[in-house]
Amino acid sequence: MAEPSLDALIEALRRLPGVGVKSAQRMAFHLLQHDREGAQRLAASLQGAVKNIRHCERCHTFTESPVCSTCLDATRDSRLLCVVESPADQAALERTGSYRGLYFVLMGKLSPLDGVGARDIGLGQLLQRVGDGSVDEVIVATNFTAEGEATAHVISEAMKSRGLKVTRLARGVPIGSELEYVDLGTIAHALSDRR
Amino acid sequence: MAEPSLDALIEALRRLPGVGVKSAQRMAFHLLQHDREGAQRLAASLQGAVKNIRHCERCHTFTESPVCSTCLDATRDSRLLCVVESPADQAALERTGSYRGLYFVLMGKLSPLDGVGARDIGLGQLLQRVGDGSVDEVIVATNFTAEGEATAHVISEAMKSRGLKVTRLARGVPIGSELEYVDLGTIAHALSDRR
Ligand SMILES: [Zn+2]
Ligand SMILES: [Zn+2]
Repeated sequence: MAEPSLDALIEALRRLPGVGVKSAQRMAFHLLQHDREGAQRLAASLQGAVKNIRHCERCHTFTESPVCSTCLDATRDSRLLCVVESPADQAALERTGSYRGLYFVLMGKLSPLDGVGARDIGLGQLLQRVGDGSVDEVIVATNFTAEGEATAHVISEAMKSRGLKVTRLARGVPIGSELEYVDLGTIAHALSDRR
Repeated sequence: MAEPSLDALIEALRRLPGVGVKSAQRMAFHLLQHDREGAQRLAASLQGAVKNIRHCERCHTFTESPVCSTCLDATRDSRLLCVVESPADQAALERTGSYRGLYFVLMGKLSPLDGVGARDIGLGQLLQRVGDGSVDEVIVATNFTAEGEATAHVISEAMKSRGLKVTRLARGVPIGSELEYVDLGTIAHALSDRR
């Protein structure tokens, strides 16, 4: 390849997470050969999102307004604050239809090995958020991975030291699963958290 | 999600080949959270490529010039024309350093089930390309898949009917492989094509 425009496109596509050089080539060839309108649309939507999307002043999630629609929803229970790692996690909780409180979205998780500390996720903003006394209970719903658990620990300690009630999503056997096929750690937690 | 800019970005990313809704979300969140400069660069390179990249008048590959640098390379043997499906296949052949002829890039393969016929790949342009009598031998280097073989068959017939010598890349056992682990079809072809 000695076509600068094509090389630049492949390089730019490679910066997307999970995209290697082969995928980037395939994407570039596909767009140029079969979907130039899709390429134009992607360019415009990238520019639009970068221009319009910022963080919600209350919950830190992505939004086009100073405060997002969830935070502005007066029908929600503002005494409950659920802390999640990402907007995708928030969406998963929303889909259950069983939570009517508010959220705080960290936009990341602690990952000391990758140099992601408390300052890189929204911990400071979370402290500010709960500082006004409007929240009674903080539900820590970070993922049940090593990094998610470490993040949960740090958040829980910080919330408790401010006198807030802190809870964590229950760990246990997933609905519909057979014990024989559930991993040992999950069964052990389900045993110790039995109710 | 009720953020139009974010939804539009996720939708646009989903049009990339191999990208589902989860990957598109992850890409969008990554760009907005960690790499807004990468997003800007991707937007600009998409626009640049769509604006600048066209097909080479001689070999049909992507190029920014009317005729690509390979076709203009006077040190290459213009009596040999190697037909490949894609620029990636051409690059693979070039990496061997053992071919010094010219190329024709179909930019696709026949795929009747997907409605891709001879007109959708560069067959007409290939016929025009070999029509001037400058080519002695056409080496058909489409992939050894069902669609690649069908494409090879159609091209071979068209070239032969114009009195051109047509060859195909040899099929056989890959270098470094143990027969025990090579599939039966490959061994059968290696047997019948033995030399
Ligand atoms: Zn919000
Ligand atoms: Zn060319």
